Amino acid sequence: MTSTARRAATPRLLRRLNANLVLDALRSAGPLRVTQLVARTRLSRPTVDAVADDLLRLGWLEQVGAAPGAGPRRGRPARLLAFRADAGYVVGVDIGEHTVRVAVADLLGRVVAERRHGLAAHRRGTGPPTVPHGSERLELVRRTAAATLADAGVGRDDVLAASVGCTGGMDAETGAVLFTSAFPGLADVNLRTELEGTLGDTVLVENECNLAVLGERWQGAAVGVEDAICVLAAERLGAGIVVGGTLVRGHAGLAGEMPFLGAYEFVHGAEGIAYLIRTLGTEAAAAGRLAGHEAAGLEAEAVVAAARAGDPVAIEIVERSVHAAGRAIVVMALVLNPELVVIGGGVAAAGDVVLEPLRRQLEAMVRMPPRLEASALGARGALVGAIRHALDHVEPALLAGLEEVA
Amino acid sequence: MTSTARRAATPRLLRRLNANLVLDALRSAGPLRVTQLVARTRLSRPTVDAVADDLLRLGWLEQVGAAPGAGPRRGRPARLLAFRADAGYVVGVDIGEHTVRVAVADLLGRVVAERRHGLAAHRRGTGPPTVPHGSERLELVRRTAAATLADAGVGRDDVLAASVGCTGGMDAETGAVLFTSAFPGLADVNLRTELEGTLGDTVLVENECNLAVLGERWQGAAVGVEDAICVLAAERLGAGIVVGGTLVRGHAGLAGEMPFLGAYEFVHGAEGIAYLIRTLGTEAAAAGRLAGHEAAGLEAEAVVAAARAGDPVAIEIVERSVHAAGRAIVVMALVLNPELVVIGGGVAAAGDVVLEPLRRQLEAMVRMPPRLEASALGARGALVGAIRHALDHVEPALLAGLEEVA
Repeated sequence: MTSTARRAATPRLLRRLNANLVLDALRSAGPLRVTQLVARTRLSRPTVDAVADDLLRLGWLEQVGAAPGAGPRRGRPARLLAFRADAGYVVGVDIGEHTVRVAVADLLGRVVAERRHGLAAHRRGTGPPTVPHGSERLELVRRTAAATLADAGVGRDDVLAASVGCTGGMDAETGAVLFTSAFPGLADVNLRTELEGTLGDTVLVENECNLAVLGERWQGAAVGVEDAICVLAAERLGAGIVVGGTLVRGHAGLAGEMPFLGAYEFVHGAEGIAYLIRTLGTEAAAAGRLAGHEAAGLEAEAVVAAARAGDPVAIEIVERSVHAAGRAIVVMALVLNPELVVIGGGVAAAGDVVLEPLRRQLEAMVRMPPRLEASALGARGALVGAIRHALDHVEPALLAGLEEVA
Repeated sequence: MTSTARRAATPRLLRRLNANLVLDALRSAGPLRVTQLVARTRLSRPTVDAVADDLLRLGWLEQVGAAPGAGPRRGRPARLLAFRADAGYVVGVDIGEHTVRVAVADLLGRVVAERRHGLAAHRRGTGPPTVPHGSERLELVRRTAAATLADAGVGRDDVLAASVGCTGGMDAETGAVLFTSAFPGLADVNLRTELEGTLGDTVLVENECNLAVLGERWQGAAVGVEDAICVLAAERLGAGIVVGGTLVRGHAGLAGEMPFLGAYEFVHGAEGIAYLIRTLGTEAAAAGRLAGHEAAGLEAEAVVAAARAGDPVAIEIVERSVHAAGRAIVVMALVLNPELVVIGGGVAAAGDVVLEPLRRQLEAMVRMPPRLEASALGARGALVGAIRHALDHVEPALLAGLEEVA
């Protein structure tokens, strides 16, 4: 059967599938000659030539010069083809409670520029310290994004897609924040509308835990794992869930969001855990049980360091402090029976200390418990996932132009 | 493009797809003429004729006589074709703690015969009442299945697939029981091996909650719902989960199995709930707070009936008794954000009384709470799901013979 006959059968679908095969080969292997592409894709040489012509015309490939060495003596010269990773860019944004992160990446997902803007807490009147929210926070996001794009030398119109992660429930269809207990000022705000002036015409909006699990599956601890949960113990505790390789968003996009679980006293994010460690540590130090530590001004980090050094009292304090988060992880493991649970967010940094007690808790409560690992991406998990999310959106769009060429 | 040319492109796949279209049309609409099949399937007449010939030869269709009315004057006469629902049978089995249920259905899923065998608890020595387990229970399953097949006039070799549901973790690959806290005697038993002598060569083994959610999606409260949980409050509380229309089994097939949650004191099955209702009701009656009821010998059903009649004390007792199950449902709703939660199993019968307090609990704790409904299938949910499960297995197998004909 000739390639022409196959095209005739379902031309659009086949052209896309063939183009995808060629793009995938070039993205993963770097520049290749047509003969190498034929070998890798198992497409015929005329098909590869036709696909290459289409993709060159669309601007997704470039000819990086005739291949060195002897080309065939007849017919076309051996072209060396390369994926144009700089034919466009994507932007990932993570709007955290205390930090805004922005990264610009090329079409291979390589970060070209990245910025992080800490949001210092400040007191208003006699209340607790607050961090900026609402329009003030959005302005910081815009400024950080603009600065990162400038660092990368990338203009708004070169951004093929941006993905913005935020705590809370996001309406992925409209780009609106459904709710976010962390940033009351952002509730009902449409992040797409607010940010497309800076980030280009395609702004995706997604829950940060969902982005974190995409990040872990792409470059983190969950590579190759089909059933994984990424628990983001950052400001609060939430989970991104992948079942059978597919992100579980839930009926209204709220899967893994546990804003009310506080009422069950079993959910604390990193801040709750740090608070417990500091409080219990201060009590222990005051009672003279935490050797070498004063009660006054004791920080959670010092207790974690003591636990890491083997101090039994510090170890017990860490265990008690992570127990509540452990219960939430136990519940999720029972409901979903995942292969792997990744601990991401702020707690990941203390992974060596907190993982062991969490593991014991899982083993005591869950039959066939999942593996438990700390994120290798740490606080960057959602940002890396945002890049992956934007790339996932761009890749089918790359081929949309195929219908128009030839 | 002719039908022949399309066959040439990917002959196996297309023949199967075409055969499926024809089978689906005949299964849903009943007997049809070829011209009606052409209109419904949008296949060409020669294709429909070819597919019909194949399926007639395989025995899945039958010609129910020339169609009444004028056929075409030239060419083939107008054949009236029908799906042969009796070309084979499936068997559904639900091994419950107190009941074994078996149903034999035809290939349209219509139940031909059904039996239910109650397992009376009996005391051994001074211990609590026990129900038969292990080999004794398997023997009951075999006897009930053989009797139901005899009722249906169906021999073992006419059973194209059987699906067996059981509480606990099942290894769907091997057919072995991984664990089942309800039936210690069945742990590590291979249900497939034990039952294939009675149920035929294809015995599927599945967790009963997973079957229950399949049943609800097929004929129950979750028809057309893509994200649903069926909570089986029977002997204990477990859940069958469907996300995006696909059953979530988990990495080791244990998703929704919560054997250890008792330690968190928030899981009770129907028996736990009935026990609480009886205990609290007896207390209230003894204190003279439950009008018209004596403390001695008070049954849970009487308290439920009083709640149904509007007695405020009885209503409060029911509320307190279902609260623990409600917490488990809240947790699952937060983790999965389903559209619908179906309450199945023994509690479904008291749905009108228990749903309202559960609904209030969900509304208080879950943003955008799922709809909550009682199963219309009740205690038969897992059995109906087992029939669906077996049919799902048979349907692709129907077409396996296509490669051999013609």
